[in-house]
Amino acid sequence: MSLLVIGTVAFDALETPFGKTDKIVGGAATYIGLSASYSLKPVNIVAVVGDDFAQSDIQLLETHGVDTEGLQIKAGEKSFFWSGKYSQDLNSRETLATELNVLADFDPTIPDGYQDCKYLMLGNLTPAVQRLVIQRLVNRPKLIVMDTMNFWMDVALEELLATIEMVDVLSINDEEARQLSGEHSLVKAAKKIQAMGPKYLIIKKGEHGALLFHKTKMFYAPAMPLEEVFDPTGAGDTFAGGFIGYLAATDDISFENMKRAVIHGSAMASFCVEKFGTERLLNLTAGEIEAREAQFAELVRVEPALEPAS
Amino acid sequence: MSLLVIGTVAFDALETPFGKTDKIVGGAATYIGLSASYSLKPVNIVAVVGDDFAQSDIQLLETHGVDTEGLQIKAGEKSFFWSGKYSQDLNSRETLATELNVLADFDPTIPDGYQDCKYLMLGNLTPAVQRLVIQRLVNRPKLIVMDTMNFWMDVALEELLATIEMVDVLSINDEEARQLSGEHSLVKAAKKIQAMGPKYLIIKKGEHGALLFHKTKMFYAPAMPLEEVFDPTGAGDTFAGGFIGYLAATDDISFENMKRAVIHGSAMASFCVEKFGTERLLNLTAGEIEAREAQFAELVRVEPALEPAS
Repeated sequence: MSLLVIGTVAFDALETPFGKTDKIVGGAATYIGLSASYSLKPVNIVAVVGDDFAQSDIQLLETHGVDTEGLQIKAGEKSFFWSGKYSQDLNSRETLATELNVLADFDPTIPDGYQDCKYLMLGNLTPAVQRLVIQRLVNRPKLIVMDTMNFWMDVALEELLATIEMVDVLSINDEEARQLSGEHSLVKAAKKIQAMGPKYLIIKKGEHGALLFHKTKMFYAPAMPLEEVFDPTGAGDTFAGGFIGYLAATDDISFENMKRAVIHGSAMASFCVEKFGTERLLNLTAGEIEAREAQFAELVRVEPALEPAS
Repeated sequence: MSLLVIGTVAFDALETPFGKTDKIVGGAATYIGLSASYSLKPVNIVAVVGDDFAQSDIQLLETHGVDTEGLQIKAGEKSFFWSGKYSQDLNSRETLATELNVLADFDPTIPDGYQDCKYLMLGNLTPAVQRLVIQRLVNRPKLIVMDTMNFWMDVALEELLATIEMVDVLSINDEEARQLSGEHSLVKAAKKIQAMGPKYLIIKKGEHGALLFHKTKMFYAPAMPLEEVFDPTGAGDTFAGGFIGYLAATDDISFENMKRAVIHGSAMASFCVEKFGTERLLNLTAGEIEAREAQFAELVRVEPALEPAS
């Protein structure tokens, strides 16, 4: 089923304890698009870059099944740029530079061919722009998933709440869920956030996994403990891309299928962190993904006891 | 199968954002004993208290199936006392007072009737005393589980390593595993710690659950996200008591059964935090425990897809 992704396509410069990169292609829509492309093709994206974005960068997306008709290229302008440095344990990061550039006045245009989208993924971006995309679709998609971050809670809460109200699934991390709801307990936070509009809530807990909430139902997908984490950049976006890609490919938005989508997203994210930037997402095989999903299933598998213990 | 527990039996004074207590009965052996008693009775304990410990306190343990023949009562001395205050989010705590009292020169004596123990739980205590108990048992138990804490890594590392070398299962939290191994990755930490002696390692991650490692095998039991956490005191000990109680009751130390024991321990710990101190552990029913274990199973349950998505 047709999938539309909006978000940033950008340059990142990353520094982790294991090395650093020059400007490499990053951005939420890039990670989401590449991740989702392993479930279905094409993945349509609406985003904006400057003319510093090379034809070869666009070609890279295209060869991975990401359709770039909706990628605006602004002549004489520069792409969004983010630079960050991770702490020794990778659990925190410092922003070294943020240059909005083309993002400052991004006016999302949806190509006619994208209007039929049944699945819409709103990658992290100004909430007002996320909302504009929903409004510019002639028909409301079957499922709208939204990712966001604490930054918008700090500087544009009202806009953010107006957008959250319009989506079906919200995906945020544990600290963001606590900030948005004012509740420390994630169970209480989930109730309050569902009352804001989204019928489903995903709370990402990084190395501790992800929780999916819907009404009184709750599902916990642990993350795979990894020997090496090289670069956490894009893990959340890769998760989101895997999640919505799986749902779009199966065209089944039952809670039971969302659980499987969460596990698929977790598996995709576990690959992403193994290399710098998008590198690991560029050459995965279906066999590798299946094997990783089997490891996730094995991680929590328990054979029932033959008879009760006591 | 006979179970022997050593550890502290003590008075605690607790302060959480939800209230405070006067001196109440606490200590590792108390939580472990009460928790294990739901799997099998009696639970034999070796511990020491002062004569400030009331007959009614001893009676409380006895009525819950904790045998106190091994509980030394030192006339004219006072019981171990700990006082602590939790932060607003319960994620950290400050020690307000630690009075060793009878613990300062605890010389563990094992009653003859306890010598046949097949399962030994070494609750958190001076590593030298933990080791002494192993040495004073005529026959090595079938399974020795050890709990400890970062304090001993700081002040008695050599003693600690000598004790760790003698046990089958080590139970510590994630920060302790990182400190003990010098590795941030829990997968790498688990390898290094298994090389120190224990064939099995449990890494407790509090609200994020617990990991069980054995050779190349790994199991992740998420904790139950709770609406209310009232007092985290004793959660780790209650987990350990549930874990070894389950193993002793089933007398099966296969990895598969250890997984079930981890889930049982997690379920017991999830009750413990619902009330102050040991309160919630004093009146559980088998039905409540079974229902909670079913919730844990449901939390991670995924029905396989009818056919692969793509």
